[in-house]
Amino acid sequence: MEELGKAGAYNGGYLARATDICTEMFTDVDTTRFLGLAGAMVPGGMGGIVEDLIRDGYVDVLVSTGANMTHDTIEAIGCHHYHGTEICDDDELYEEEINRIYDIFLPSDAFISFEEFMQETLGELTDGTTLSISGLMRHIGEHLDTGILAAAAEADIPVYCPAIQDSMIGLQYWLFNQMHKVTIDAFGDMSQLMDTCFTAKKAGAFLIGGGVPKNYIFQSMLMTPPKGFDYAVQLTGDRPDLGGLSGATLDEAKSWGGKVTGEAHAQTVYGDATINLPLIIAAVRERIEHA
Amino acid sequence: MEELGKAGAYNGGYLARATDICTEMFTDVDTTRFLGLAGAMVPGGMGGIVEDLIRDGYVDVLVSTGANMTHDTIEAIGCHHYHGTEICDDDELYEEEINRIYDIFLPSDAFISFEEFMQETLGELTDGTTLSISGLMRHIGEHLDTGILAAAAEADIPVYCPAIQDSMIGLQYWLFNQMHKVTIDAFGDMSQLMDTCFTAKKAGAFLIGGGVPKNYIFQSMLMTPPKGFDYAVQLTGDRPDLGGLSGATLDEAKSWGGKVTGEAHAQTVYGDATINLPLIIAAVRERIEHA
Amino acid sequence: MEELGKAGAYNGGYLARATDICTEMFTDVDTTRFLGLAGAMVPGGMGGIVEDLIRDGYVDVLVSTGANMTHDTIEAIGCHHYHGTEICDDDELYEEEINRIYDIFLPSDAFISFEEFMQETLGELTDGTTLSISGLMRHIGEHLDTGILAAAAEADIPVYCPAIQDSMIGLQYWLFNQMHKVTIDAFGDMSQLMDTCFTAKKAGAFLIGGGVPKNYIFQSMLMTPPKGFDYAVQLTGDRPDLGGLSGATLDEAKSWGGKVTGEAHAQTVYGDATINLPLIIAAVRERIEHA
Amino acid sequence: MEELGKAGAYNGGYLARATDICTEMFTDVDTTRFLGLAGAMVPGGMGGIVEDLIRDGYVDVLVSTGANMTHDTIEAIGCHHYHGTEICDDDELYEEEINRIYDIFLPSDAFISFEEFMQETLGELTDGTTLSISGLMRHIGEHLDTGILAAAAEADIPVYCPAIQDSMIGLQYWLFNQMHKVTIDAFGDMSQLMDTCFTAKKAGAFLIGGGVPKNYIFQSMLMTPPKGFDYAVQLTGDRPDLGGLSGATLDEAKSWGGKVTGEAHAQTVYGDATINLPLIIAAVRERIEHA
Repeated sequence: MEELGKAGAYNGGYLARATDICTEMFTDVDTTRFLGLAGAMVPGGMGGIVEDLIRDGYVDVLVSTGANMTHDTIEAIGCHHYHGTEICDDDELYEEEINRIYDIFLPSDAFISFEEFMQETLGELTDGTTLSISGLMRHIGEHLDTGILAAAAEADIPVYCPAIQDSMIGLQYWLFNQMHKVTIDAFGDMSQLMDTCFTAKKAGAFLIGGGVPKNYIFQSMLMTPPKGFDYAVQLTGDRPDLGGLSGATLDEAKSWGGKVTGEAHAQTVYGDATINLPLIIAAVRERIEHA
Repeated sequence: MEELGKAGAYNGGYLARATDICTEMFTDVDTTRFLGLAGAMVPGGMGGIVEDLIRDGYVDVLVSTGANMTHDTIEAIGCHHYHGTEICDDDELYEEEINRIYDIFLPSDAFISFEEFMQETLGELTDGTTLSISGLMRHIGEHLDTGILAAAAEADIPVYCPAIQDSMIGLQYWLFNQMHKVTIDAFGDMSQLMDTCFTAKKAGAFLIGGGVPKNYIFQSMLMTPPKGFDYAVQLTGDRPDLGGLSGATLDEAKSWGGKVTGEAHAQTVYGDATINLPLIIAAVRERIEHA
Repeated sequence: MEELGKAGAYNGGYLARATDICTEMFTDVDTTRFLGLAGAMVPGGMGGIVEDLIRDGYVDVLVSTGANMTHDTIEAIGCHHYHGTEICDDDELYEEEINRIYDIFLPSDAFISFEEFMQETLGELTDGTTLSISGLMRHIGEHLDTGILAAAAEADIPVYCPAIQDSMIGLQYWLFNQMHKVTIDAFGDMSQLMDTCFTAKKAGAFLIGGGVPKNYIFQSMLMTPPKGFDYAVQLTGDRPDLGGLSGATLDEAKSWGGKVTGEAHAQTVYGDATINLPLIIAAVRERIEHA
Repeated sequence: MEELGKAGAYNGGYLARATDICTEMFTDVDTTRFLGLAGAMVPGGMGGIVEDLIRDGYVDVLVSTGANMTHDTIEAIGCHHYHGTEICDDDELYEEEINRIYDIFLPSDAFISFEEFMQETLGELTDGTTLSISGLMRHIGEHLDTGILAAAAEADIPVYCPAIQDSMIGLQYWLFNQMHKVTIDAFGDMSQLMDTCFTAKKAGAFLIGGGVPKNYIFQSMLMTPPKGFDYAVQLTGDRPDLGGLSGATLDEAKSWGGKVTGEAHAQTVYGDATINLPLIIAAVRERIEHA
C-alpha cells in the first residue's frame, strides 16, 4: 500500500489515500462510523471482513441491503456459497436447483434451511406488537452465532435495512405474517438514527457499493445541519456520468447542504470491492494494530 | 432503430432487440407489465416518458426508488431541475444553496416548497391509522396534477417504493410523524403484489436501472412458481462482473427458480438510460401507434 | 435529439451538445476535419456511416486502426460479417472456422478471399520502391468499389494507419514482402500530416473510440503551436479514472500545449458508439441537409 | 492473495486465478513470454515493475505503445512525473506548462530535456540506413541506464512498438529525419517476431491493457498455426459488450484460429492495472522466489 501511495496514480493512488482516510476514521475516537454494505458482498465472500470490523469495534452503525443480511444468515446457519463459474447454462442450473450470483453458486437447499430457521425465529415474536426493521435484524442476530448479524447483536450496534421487504428475509417475514400479526414500522428506526447523527461529535462513512445504504447514510445527516461527514470512503464500480447516486462523487455530496463537509477527508476508489475492500482493510489494520 | 437492427452489433443490436421485445410486451394483452425505475431518472428529465407510459396504459405496476418519486413531486408542484455542469466547485454550490445531481442543479428553495406541500398533504392523513407504502404514494399522487405519481393515481396503478424511508419523502414523513401517529407498514403492500403475480397470465418487466426496483420486481415472482417473467428488458450502466444485481444478466435470473422463464424474451442494453430510454420508447410507440 | 437537448442530463445531454458541435464543425468551411476510427466499428456495421461521411465531403483526414480497414476491405470484396451471439462455445466456433467479434461472426472463408485480393493487389506494387502507409491504403482503395478505402481514394483524402502492421492487412503485406522488396516507411506520412495541420485555418476532431487514432490526431497538433483543435467530439466507452488516453477528457488535452484550444467546442459522450454514432450523424445530417 | 482465492468471487477470484496462471507461465521453462503494455502505465508509476520483470528474466518479448516508451525515456534521463490532481483547471495548467495525464503532472521542461537527448541519440544513426522499429528502440535503450528500454537492451530482448509514429519518440524521430535520411521500415520486425512464434515450444501472454500491444501479440500467432498461447492473463478496464478488442474476452480469442489454444490457462481481470498489476506481480514473485 505504501508503494501504491508512492506511485500515486489513478485508482492505485486513490486506494492509498482511502487507506489513509480510513485509518484516521477508525482511530479518531470522536468519530461515529457508519458502514454501508451494498452489492453482492456476502455471497462474494466479504462477510468475514465486515463481521470482524464489527467485532473489533470499528463500526457504530451498519446500513445494508436485505440481500446481504439474507446471505449472512444463510452462512450463519451452516449453508455455503460455492465458487462456480459465470460461463454456464442457466436453464441447466435451474433444473439442478442452483441459484447463480455471477460466478457464485447457491443450491436451493440453502433456502429450505433458511425458511426453517426464519419461521422458527420469527415464531418467537409476540403477536400484536410493532417492530422496527433494526429490531427485526437484532432479533435474527440474537439467534445466530456467527456472521454479521450475530456480531452486530453482540456488539449492540444497529443494523438498518431500509428495503428489508426487498429480500428473502422480507419474503420469509411476509410468509410468517400471513398467520400472525406483527407490524414492521417502516419508519421505526428513524428517530434513533437521527439521534445518533445529532449526538455524534464527528462522523465517518465507509461505503461498500452505493445503492440504498449510501443514500440512507448520507441523507441521515441532512436533518442535522450544519453537520456532515468528516470522513468518507467509497468503493464503487459505478462512474459518475450516468447520474446515479451509486457512482456520484463525494464532492457532489458536499453541494447537498451537509452530507459531506467541505473540509472532509473523502476518497472514492473505482473498481471491484472484492479486491479493494480486503486490501484497504488489511492495510488499515496493519497500521493500527502494529503501530 | 431498424437500421440498428440490421447492423445488429454490440449494444446497438441489443437496443434493436430490446425494442422488439418491448413492442411485444406492450401489445400482448395477457401481460401484466412491471416498470422498475432506479437511478436519477426524474432529475435527468425522463419523468415525462414514464408518466406518458402510465397514462397510455403501458404500465400495470410501478416500482421506484423514493428519490425518483421525490423529484417527481418537486416538479409536479412547480419547481424545476436545471441543466448545470458537473465541472464546478461544490463548496460554492453549497454556499449558493444549489444541490447537484451530476450536471443537474436543484436549488434548495425547491425543498422548502416540497416541505410545505408534503406537510400539508400528510396532514390530511388520519391519526392512528396504518398505511402501506403504496397507500402513501397514492395519497401524494392524489394531491398532484402532473407527473408520475399523479398519473399513477389517476390510472389506479400501484406505486411500490420498498425503501421509501430512504428519500426526502421519507424524511418529510418522519418529520410529520414526530407529532402524529400514522404507521407505515413496511410489508403492507406485499399481499397485493403477490396477488398480482399470482393472477397474471403472463408477466413483463421493463427495468430502467437496477437497484431495489429490479430486485423487488424479480423476487415477487419467486413466491408464485412455476411462473416467471415472459418478457424482460433492462437498461443498465452496470456490468455483470462486479457481482451486483444491478449489472446481473437476465440469464442469471433464470437460474433463480422462476424469476425469468427459460423461454423468456429478454434483453439487456448497457449504457446510459437518458439515451436508451427515449430511443426505445419512441421506436416502440412508433410501431404500435402507427402500425 | 432536440428533446434530449431539452432534458439535457448526463450522456443524453452530452449527446445533444455533441450534435451541436458536430453540426458547427461540419458546416464551418474553414475547418479541416479529422476523423478517428478505433474499436471494432466496421465489423459492428458502422462502416457505411463513415463511408458516406467521406463521400459527402465531411472528412478531410481519416486515421484508423488497421483492423477497421481490414474489415472494410473484406466487405468491399463481397464477404460479410454476420450477426451471431456472444453466448457461445468458442472452441466450437474454432472447429467451424468462425471468427468471433463479440456478437459478430466472420467465417474464415472471408480471409481466404481477402488473401487472394491482397496478394493480387499488392502484386501490382513495383519492387524496390518505398511507400508510405497512406500510399498503401490508397493503393488498396483504388482496387475497391465500395467501402471506406474506396471512398477515401475517390475523394482523394488520406487514410493514416500508424499501426498498419498490427492488422490482417499488415500480415498480408508481410507475406507478400517475403518474395518482394517494397519498403513501407513508418514515417512516410508525417510531413504531409504536419503540412495539413500547418495550413489548416481551423481544425476539428471527430473521434470514434480512442486508441492510436485519437492520440495520433491530437499529437499532430503538437508540432504546430499555437494551434489546436477548435472542435472536438469523442464517443468512447472508457472512463477517465483509469488514466488511459482512450478515456481521457478533452479538457485534459487542453493542458497539453495546444492539442485542444482553451476556447474549443468540445464534448465527450460515454457509451457504445454503435448507438451514439448513428444517432449523432443522423441528427447532424438532418440539420444540415434539411436546414 | 490466498484469501482472495478462497473467497473466489468476481474480480477478486479472477485476480487469484490470474496469479496462479502467471506463476505457471513464469516458471514454465518451455514458455516464451510476451508482455503487452498499453495504457498510461509508465506515467502511472508502473514502469519499475515492468523493468524488474525484464531484468529478472520473466519477459522474452515486449510490445508497447510508443507513449509508454516515451515516458520511460523521460524518467530514465532524470525527469519526473508528479502526483497532481484531476480536479483542476486545464487552461491554467496550459499557462503553467504542465501536461496532465489524469492525476499525474508532467512539466513541459521534461520535453525539452527529452528533445535534447533524442536528437543527440538519433544523431548517432548512420544516414542512408534502414532500421526496424525494435532497432530504434534498442538504440535508445543502449543510451539509457535505467528504465524499461535500458533493461530490454541489457537483457537483449526486443521491444516492438508497431505505432511508434504515434508518440513523442515518433515526433522526435520525424524532426531528426527532416535533415537526415534514416528509414524506419514499418515491417522490419515482423520476420523476427514470426520466427520467435515459430520456434516457441509454448507461449504466454501477459497483457497490461489492450490496444495495439494486445492485438499485435495475438495476431503474431495467426501465422504459425496450429500454435496459440498456452497461457494468457489480461488486466483491463474495458468490458466486452462494446465490441472492441481491448475488452474482448480471452475465450473470443480461441475462436480466431489459434490466438489462444482451447486448453489455454487464461484469465481476464477487470479493473485498474495500477492496483491489479502490483498485486499480481508481488504475489507471483512471493511464490516463485520464496518457494
